[in-house]
Amino acid sequence: MASYDTSNVFAKILRGDLPCHKVYEDDRTLAFLDIMPRCPGHTLVIPKAAARGIYDITPEDLGHVHQVAQKIAKAATAVFKADGVTIQQFNEPAGGQVVFHLHVHVLPRHDGVPLKPAATFKEETATLADHAAKLSAALAG
Amino acid sequence: MASYDTSNVFAKILRGDLPCHKVYEDDRTLAFLDIMPRCPGHTLVIPKAAARGIYDITPEDLGHVHQVAQKIAKAATAVFKADGVTIQQFNEPAGGQVVFHLHVHVLPRHDGVPLKPAATFKEETATLADHAAKLSAALAG
Repeated sequence: MASYDTSNVFAKILRGDLPCHKVYEDDRTLAFLDIMPRCPGHTLVIPKAAARGIYDITPEDLGHVHQVAQKIAKAATAVFKADGVTIQQFNEPAGGQVVFHLHVHVLPRHDGVPLKPAATFKEETATLADHAAKLSAALAG
Repeated sequence: MASYDTSNVFAKILRGDLPCHKVYEDDRTLAFLDIMPRCPGHTLVIPKAAARGIYDITPEDLGHVHQVAQKIAKAATAVFKADGVTIQQFNEPAGGQVVFHLHVHVLPRHDGVPLKPAATFKEETATLADHAAKLSAALAG
């Protein structure tokens, strides 16, 4: 597998070189909305440590990232009145990965509503800001 | 969400009432091959504790299940000469869940090879036994 490339967009978000619609942050993780959501509330959880994917992340960070994804799954289910949630984590192009900093997708789901195909729909900034505010409030509450 | 139903097939596997092609086991998790794999080496990791999904599993068990999934992803990548791996975890029917005991799918992937649709292909028992033996050996080695 290739090594970590610091020019990926999530590394830029972590450095503050690009903005994000932040949902949650702690000392080891950051969570923010996907700007091309496959469903309302589609959130990404990433480790702050440099990790390309499941092959190089520390077990401790991987466990913690999924524990944060769990918090977000519960909050998003409440905020979006979801009927369930899908968790996905892609590694390498063959595995579906597009941005090469490990990220866990948290996808709130509703009965009978399929996911949009990936990267087909750019959400309005105002909607993303509203969703991030509601998720942040639910996570803080 | 509904509560945990002890009649699900993974609970039966944990009780020893149904067989499985075991890949890995520790005090808190069991991993075995999906008998209807979406790709060769398709493995499921489950907690031994009763948990329907992401809403009711303890954070400690969820973190550990994903740490075991990481071990299996690495072993399966070596055994199957995979180019990547896809991790999925479905919650409630809206989220894609079919068996109501939390399980993490570990799917070794190859460039240009799509996943088979879920539950469309029943693998031969001899092939499953061979794959389980190879994965177990890689995990023990």
